[in-house]
Amino acid sequence: MPHLLHMDSSIRTENSRSRALSQHFAQAWRSANADGTVTYRDLAADPVPHIDYEAFTANFTPEEARTPHQREARALAELLVGEVLEASDIVIGMPLYNFGVPSTVKAWFDRLVVPGLTVGEDGGLLGGRTLTITGARGGGYGPGTPREGWDHREPWLAHAFEQLGLTGVRFIHAELTLARESPAMIPLNLGDAEDRSLADAHSAIDALFATAGAAGR
Amino acid sequence: MPHLLHMDSSIRTENSRSRALSQHFAQAWRSANADGTVTYRDLAADPVPHIDYEAFTANFTPEEARTPHQREARALAELLVGEVLEASDIVIGMPLYNFGVPSTVKAWFDRLVVPGLTVGEDGGLLGGRTLTITGARGGGYGPGTPREGWDHREPWLAHAFEQLGLTGVRFIHAELTLARESPAMIPLNLGDAEDRSLADAHSAIDALFATAGAAGR
Repeated sequence: MPHLLHMDSSIRTENSRSRALSQHFAQAWRSANADGTVTYRDLAADPVPHIDYEAFTANFTPEEARTPHQREARALAELLVGEVLEASDIVIGMPLYNFGVPSTVKAWFDRLVVPGLTVGEDGGLLGGRTLTITGARGGGYGPGTPREGWDHREPWLAHAFEQLGLTGVRFIHAELTLARESPAMIPLNLGDAEDRSLADAHSAIDALFATAGAAGR
Repeated sequence: MPHLLHMDSSIRTENSRSRALSQHFAQAWRSANADGTVTYRDLAADPVPHIDYEAFTANFTPEEARTPHQREARALAELLVGEVLEASDIVIGMPLYNFGVPSTVKAWFDRLVVPGLTVGEDGGLLGGRTLTITGARGGGYGPGTPREGWDHREPWLAHAFEQLGLTGVRFIHAELTLARESPAMIPLNLGDAEDRSLADAHSAIDALFATAGAAGR
């Protein structure tokens, strides 16, 4: 049965473009998968703690030998990994913060790398599912812009998930999202370009489902 | 007066190569700067919380209008920014975790971006100081290896700090640090190469101070 893991990570709850886009994706997915179910996780509202050494070693310690902190860490890892394993499709609303992923996204990913659950002897075990990032970034980062190559989410996410066997991460971006509120950008009068970028991102999501089948595959 | 900000971020306290290297740097720096002082911060022992929306907006809210949470967030930002502003030189021991920076490093950096303190109207305000990353990475990531380009700390750190006016970030790496403990790497018998990489990193630190003056500049 198709199952969607819908996640968000913006620290904004109002006027978050990455949240609006992940929600749009989830709605399109529901329309295309009448028998599908959805799990939702909000990394901003319910942040995953930074991993520590005990939490890391919990996955290499037999159950009966784990400390209380290790048992708690293992339970969290199994919960987060279970949500991913259950999903046929994953969408994550993810803004660009200071040219990288939100720290909550890194903290979440560090809990996903679990020998035997997501990493086998011959490689990653998360193949066969789709991962779509609906991103927002304050400025322009496209080809030819001064900030081309400054969006460090994309290359990291691709390698991080490839290690777990999940390839072909898709990125759908709304750009220039600070055009109307950043003092440096207001004089550039890019508000219309911001609107177009957001509309294009919505269209790109619709196109996924129109051209690539029920799960946007 | 020369001042060193010495930081670590490894979740390991024993057998951490990044900690050993940052300590080696600090010792060499002290030898070269008899009148210098040092501040130490451990991001693993004392992790900076993930930034949230209230903490973010604290820097755009007048002091008298801040909520208790915003006052706390502002105080933390001023503490962390103050440590950086006070430093003529910064060294950070930083392992590679899942091909990126530790989430604690991102959470720390997100607190450093403060209009008026680190970002002025004409750009970043952290110029004139050195930043050295003493890194450790479990495998080999050098030119020609299958994992070349998978170390996503370097390009992100360079852009993140360039935004704050600090350019020329230096990286000194010990590689193959999992050669003797990772099941996948033990058969490759790279223990000697691990030792050579660590020795080379120590030598690179010594060379900084031998050739580039008292602050390794």
